[in-house]
Amino acid sequence: MRFRVRTWAAVAAGIAMTMTPTFGDEGMWLFNNVPKKLLKEKYGFEPTDAWLDHLQKASVRFNSGGSGSFVSANGLVMTNHHVGADDLQKLSTKEKDYLKDGFHAKTPAEEIKCKALELNCLQNIKDVTADVNAAVKDGMPPAEAFKARQGKIAEIEKAGADEAKGVRADVVTLYAGGAYHLYTYKKYTDIRLVFAPEKAVAFFGGDPDNFEYPRFCLDMCFFRVYENDQPLKCEHYLKWSAGGAKDGELTFVSGHPGRTNRQNTMAELEYLRDTGYPFLMQRLYRMEVNIGSWVARSEDNRQKGEDELFGIQNSRKARIGGLGGLLDPSIMARKAAEEKRLKDFIAANADKVPAEAAKAFETIAAGQQKRVAYIKEATLLEGGAAFNSQLFGIARTLLRYTEEKAKSPRERLPEFGDARLGSLKQGLFSDEPIHDDFEILKLADGLTLFATTMGADHELVKQVLAGKSPKERAYELVSGTKVKDVAARKAMFEKGADEADPMVAVAKLVDGPARAIRKKAETEIDEPRRQAMAALAKARFALDGTNTYPDATFTLRLAFGPVKGYTEAGKAVPPFTEMGGLYERSKEQGNKYPFELPKRWEEKKQSLDLKTPFNFVSTADIIGGNSGSPVVNQKGEVVGLIFDGNIQSLVLDFVYTEEQARAVSVDSRAMVESLRKVYDAGDLANELEGKK
Amino acid sequence: MRFRVRTWAAVAAGIAMTMTPTFGDEGMWLFNNVPKKLLKEKYGFEPTDAWLDHLQKASVRFNSGGSGSFVSANGLVMTNHHVGADDLQKLSTKEKDYLKDGFHAKTPAEEIKCKALELNCLQNIKDVTADVNAAVKDGMPPAEAFKARQGKIAEIEKAGADEAKGVRADVVTLYAGGAYHLYTYKKYTDIRLVFAPEKAVAFFGGDPDNFEYPRFCLDMCFFRVYENDQPLKCEHYLKWSAGGAKDGELTFVSGHPGRTNRQNTMAELEYLRDTGYPFLMQRLYRMEVNIGSWVARSEDNRQKGEDELFGIQNSRKARIGGLGGLLDPSIMARKAAEEKRLKDFIAANADKVPAEAAKAFETIAAGQQKRVAYIKEATLLEGGAAFNSQLFGIARTLLRYTEEKAKSPRERLPEFGDARLGSLKQGLFSDEPIHDDFEILKLADGLTLFATTMGADHELVKQVLAGKSPKERAYELVSGTKVKDVAARKAMFEKGADEADPMVAVAKLVDGPARAIRKKAETEIDEPRRQAMAALAKARFALDGTNTYPDATFTLRLAFGPVKGYTEAGKAVPPFTEMGGLYERSKEQGNKYPFELPKRWEEKKQSLDLKTPFNFVSTADIIGGNSGSPVVNQKGEVVGLIFDGNIQSLVLDFVYTEEQARAVSVDSRAMVESLRKVYDAGDLANELEGKK
Repeated sequence: MRFRVRTWAAVAAGIAMTMTPTFGDEGMWLFNNVPKKLLKEKYGFEPTDAWLDHLQKASVRFNSGGSGSFVSANGLVMTNHHVGADDLQKLSTKEKDYLKDGFHAKTPAEEIKCKALELNCLQNIKDVTADVNAAVKDGMPPAEAFKARQGKIAEIEKAGADEAKGVRADVVTLYAGGAYHLYTYKKYTDIRLVFAPEKAVAFFGGDPDNFEYPRFCLDMCFFRVYENDQPLKCEHYLKWSAGGAKDGELTFVSGHPGRTNRQNTMAELEYLRDTGYPFLMQRLYRMEVNIGSWVARSEDNRQKGEDELFGIQNSRKARIGGLGGLLDPSIMARKAAEEKRLKDFIAANADKVPAEAAKAFETIAAGQQKRVAYIKEATLLEGGAAFNSQLFGIARTLLRYTEEKAKSPRERLPEFGDARLGSLKQGLFSDEPIHDDFEILKLADGLTLFATTMGADHELVKQVLAGKSPKERAYELVSGTKVKDVAARKAMFEKGADEADPMVAVAKLVDGPARAIRKKAETEIDEPRRQAMAALAKARFALDGTNTYPDATFTLRLAFGPVKGYTEAGKAVPPFTEMGGLYERSKEQGNKYPFELPKRWEEKKQSLDLKTPFNFVSTADIIGGNSGSPVVNQKGEVVGLIFDGNIQSLVLDFVYTEEQARAVSVDSRAMVESLRKVYDAGDLANELEGKK
Repeated sequence: MRFRVRTWAAVAAGIAMTMTPTFGDEGMWLFNNVPKKLLKEKYGFEPTDAWLDHLQKASVRFNSGGSGSFVSANGLVMTNHHVGADDLQKLSTKEKDYLKDGFHAKTPAEEIKCKALELNCLQNIKDVTADVNAAVKDGMPPAEAFKARQGKIAEIEKAGADEAKGVRADVVTLYAGGAYHLYTYKKYTDIRLVFAPEKAVAFFGGDPDNFEYPRFCLDMCFFRVYENDQPLKCEHYLKWSAGGAKDGELTFVSGHPGRTNRQNTMAELEYLRDTGYPFLMQRLYRMEVNIGSWVARSEDNRQKGEDELFGIQNSRKARIGGLGGLLDPSIMARKAAEEKRLKDFIAANADKVPAEAAKAFETIAAGQQKRVAYIKEATLLEGGAAFNSQLFGIARTLLRYTEEKAKSPRERLPEFGDARLGSLKQGLFSDEPIHDDFEILKLADGLTLFATTMGADHELVKQVLAGKSPKERAYELVSGTKVKDVAARKAMFEKGADEADPMVAVAKLVDGPARAIRKKAETEIDEPRRQAMAALAKARFALDGTNTYPDATFTLRLAFGPVKGYTEAGKAVPPFTEMGGLYERSKEQGNKYPFELPKRWEEKKQSLDLKTPFNFVSTADIIGGNSGSPVVNQKGEVVGLIFDGNIQSLVLDFVYTEEQARAVSVDSRAMVESLRKVYDAGDLANELEGKK
C-alpha cells in the first residue's frame, strides 16, 4: 500500500468502531489509552507517560493525507516520498520536475515553500463525551439530534481553536459515537521542501510491486517547518538510532491510520461487499484507465496527472485486497461469530446494556438498505463524482461558503465551522497550477458517468449538459469559469459567489439535490447508526471492558510489534531486504520502467555497502494514513519509516491478522547510507544523526 | 481503432440494419449489390463484374477477427500485424518473442504453421430469403418461429458445406432479418507465418496514439496459405501498385466490417447509451486494469497477456468514442429525425408496408426493456463473463457438445450445427499454450464480478464458489481441470464431457440458467425484433428503394472513397504522413515506450527515403473487422492496408460522416521501402511487386 488517505476513497465506506478482545499485536491505540500492561506482559517494556508525550509531540499529520515526524531540533520533518508527492508535483515546473528527478536544498536558502501544505501536531486530548451527549435530548428526532450534536461540536471546536496562535481544535468521534475527544493541534503552514530522491527509487517497482514484498523502495522525503520565516526550534523530535532494528526487536509506530471498518456489523460488511466496494471500484477502474491512457500520451500529461494516477492505482489495489477479504467465507465466518457473541451477550444482559442495544443491529441493517438506495446519487452529487475536477470543487466551496456564512455557526455544514475557516482558505487561495486539459478530461468523464448512471434523459442531467455532449460541456465549463483565477476566488469569497460564472452556476444547479441527499443520508442512516453504535459501544464495554481501541479516524495512534518475517506458499520471507537487492530486481526486470534505476544510483553503486538493510517488515497494525509514520525502538529512536503493507495486510480494514499481514518500512540505515553516498547530502545525514 | 472484431465486444450490442439514403461516401456494400451507378456518376468509374469477382476472391477473412488479401500467385496473404498478433504470440516461445521482435522466413522452409488459424475466402453468394422465410408459418409463437428458422438455416448450411473439400457455408442474416444470403467460402487451415515487423513499429505509439492521426505505424504482417503442404497457387490475387495512391484519388476497401448499429431504432440507441455501453465499459475498464497491472509485473506476464490487453484497450477506446456519439444530442437528433421520417411514411402508407410495421417500433422498444432486465445475467452466465478464462470456454464447449450431438441438427444450438463442426474442432483441439497463472487471474476476477453483481449470498454464486474466496476457487478450478490437456479434450469430445472434472462441473452447474437466459433473450427479444425489423426493412424498401446496404455482419463488403485530409480544430490535417515523421514523433516522446524504435530502425535510418509516404487517410466507410483490408485503386492494385480509423470515426457505429471521420491505412510504398531497406527482405518485396 502506498499508505495515504485519499478523501474520495472514503465515499463508499461507513465509519466504524472496535473493542473486541485483541489478537497478538493488534491495535491502533489512542495515545491516552495505551495498553501498558499488555506491553509489559508480552514484551517486558512499559512506556512511561513522558515517553508517550514525547513521541506524540514529535509526530505530525499531513493535511494532504499522511503522517510524519520531527527528526531534528531545527524542525526537520521526515515522511514518505509518496506523501510529499503532491507537493513535489505542485512545486515542479516545465524545466524542473522534482517528483521525477528529486530535490536537494544544500542550504536553508534553497528550501522551497510548499503551496497549501498544512501540518498538525497533536498537543492535547480531552474527553468531551458528556458535553457532546448532553446536547442531544432523549426523544429528539434524528435530524434534530444530528443538528444539536453538530452545533455542540462546532461550539467546542471554536472555543478550543485559536487561529492567531495557530491552534486547531477538532472533536473526534470515536467508537462511531461511543466517545468524543477534543484534539488540540499546533498547526504549521510554512512548510519547505528539503530533500526528495528520484521517484524511480522512491517508488521502485511502481504499481506492479506496490503491496508486494520483498521490496526495495527509498520512499522518503524531508521537509522543514518554519515559523516567522525561521526554522522551527523543536523541543520534541525523534533521535536517530545508531544501529537500526534487529530481527525480532519490538518497534512502535506513531501515525494516523485513516479508516478501518473492524467493528462494522455484518449488515455493513455485506453492504460493502455487495454494493459499496463494487461501486467504488467501478469508479477507480474507469478513472485509472482514463487518466492512465491520457498520462501515457505525453511527458507533459505525465507531469500533470501522474500523482493522481498513482493514488487511484494504490486505492484500487487496496480495495481489490479488501474485497477479497469480504468475499472470503472464512473471514466472514469469523466476523459473524464475533457479532453473535455480542448479540448473545446483549440478549442475556438486558440489565447491563442500554435499551437501544437490543435493536441496534436492526437499526443499522435498515440504514444499509437505504445506503444501497442512496449511494449512487450521493456519490455523484454530494461526493462530486459527476463533476470530477478541481474547478468544480472550488466553485462549490465558494457557493456554499456564501450561503453558510450567513447562518449561525450551529446551523452550518461542519466543514464551514469557524474552526475550519483557516484551513479552508488556505486550500481555496492556493495558487497551485490547475491544468485545463486535465480538468476537461476528468470533468468529461464525470459528466459521462453522471449521464450513464442517471440516464441521459434524466431532467437534472439534461440541465447540467445544456444540450451538449459531456466532452463539449466540460470544455465549455472549464474554459468559461473564472474560479481558475485566485484573485477571482478571493473576490467571490468576500462578496459572494458569482452565479453567472458557468461552473458556479452548475454547482448551484445541483446543490439543492446534493444537499438533500446528504441530509437524507445523515438523518436516515448516519444519525440512527451513531446512536445504535453508541449503544453497542456500551454493550461492548460491558462485555470486554474498556481496554480497547476504536476504529481508525485519521488521528494519532500507537501501534507496535516486532520486526518479523513470514511464510508464504511454504517459503520463508525474511524480514529485511538489502540495498544490493535493488540492483538485482532492476536487472531481472530488464532495467525497464518502473524498474529502471536513476543514473546516480548506477554510478554510485560501487561506493555503497550493498549489505545495508533497505526495507523491513513488522507486525504493527497499520492502514492507509500511516504512510510516513516513524518506526521507533524502545528508546524512542528512529529505526524506520512506514510506507506500505504487504498484500496480505489488505484485509486489515476488517480484521487484524499477524500470520502473514505485515507493515513495510524503509530502514533508517538505508536512508543515511543513500544520503551520504548517493546524494552527497552529508549535512542532512548529520542533522538526522545529531552530528550537526 | 485497431480494427479487429472481438467476440466479447459484441455482447452488449444488438444486430442492426440500414437502408436510408446514403451520405457522401457512405456504405459497406454487399458484393452482389454494389452502387455502380453512384460510382459512375460521382467518380466516373464503373467496376465491372469481373473486377468485383476478382477483388472478392482475392479477399480473405481471418477467423481470429480481421480481414486480409492474397497478394501473390503463391498464396501470400497480407494483413495487419495486430490481426496476426494472436498467432505471433501463440508461436512465440520463452526464447523467441515474434510478437515483440518480429519474424522473417527467408525461405519457404522457415515459414511456421499457425495454430488454429482459419482463413475464409468468399466464393459465392446466393439469396435464400424465400427459403428461410417459408420455414416460419404465420402465427407461430416466437420460440417456435425461432427454432423453425434456425433449423432451416442449419439445413441450408449443411447442404452447402463440404468439409472434405474445405467448403464452408454460412447463412448470413442481413437487414436484421430483411434478407438471408448463403455465403459459400473456401476454407484454408494450413496458414504459415512469413513476415512480421517488430511490434514497436507495427503498433508505434501504442494505446496513446491508437485512433489518433497523424500516425506512423507499419501495421503489416504476411502469411502464406498452403494446401497439401504446398504454397497455394492463386488465380485471384491483388497486384501491387507501382506508384501508390495520390491525394484525392478514388480507392476501394474490400473487407469484413464486424458490426454496425446504424439502423437501430431510438429505443435501441437509448438502451445502448444508458445500459449496454456503460455495462460493457465497466467490464472493459476492470479487465484493462487487472490484466494491465499483471502484465506490468514481469516480462513473462507481458508475453502471456499483452495481446489480450491490447484488444481490451482498443475496444475501450472505441466504446468511449461510440458512447460519446450517443451522448451527443446533435447525433441523437439526426437519428430521431430519420426515425420520424420512416414512422410518418408507415403511418401514411398502410397499403405499401406490412401490417407489422405499424407496431414494429413498439415491439422493439418492449424488447429493450427486457434487455435491460436480462443483460447482467446474460453476460455473466451465457456470455461467460463470470468465468472469464479459456479453460471454462473449453469445458463448456465439451459439455454442450456432449448434449447437443445427441439432438437432431434442427434442434441444436447453431454453433454446434454440422457445418460448424470442423471449425469447432480446430479451435478445441488447438495445442496453443494456456497459462495457469493468467487463467487464474482472469477467472478470479470473473468470479469476483459474478459475486458482486449477483450478490455473494446468491444461491448459484455460493454453489459456484463452494465455500472458497474467488481467488482460492479460481486456483482450485484451474489447477484441477484436465481440459488443459488436448488429449483429454479429444477423449471427452468422443466419449462425452467428464462431469467429475471440476471445470466441467462448474460449466454444468451454470448451464441450466445460462441456457434459460439465452432462450429468454432469443424468444422474447431477438425473435420479435427480427420480425419487426423485417417489416421495417420492407417499409424502408418501399420508402427508399433497394439500392442500399445492410448493417455490418463480419462478411465481405466493399467501401470506397478518395484519399483525403480533413480539418481539426481549425487546422488542416494532411492525408499522408512520411517515414521521417516516425523518427520525429519518437524523438519528441523521448524514445520511450510505446514510442521507442526498434534498433534496426535506428541503424537503417540513413538508407531510408524519409519522404516515403507512410500512412494515409481516406473517406471509406469502415469499422472494426476491416483491419487488414486491402486498399486498391481503380485498377484493383494494392495502394494500402487498412489498420485504423481516426478518433472522429468512432461514431461510424451509428452514423456515417465524412466531415472528419477517416479510415487510416499503411501506404504500400512504405511497406516495400521497409521490407527492402530495413528488413533485408528483398525477396518478399519482389514477390509483392511481381518481380519474382
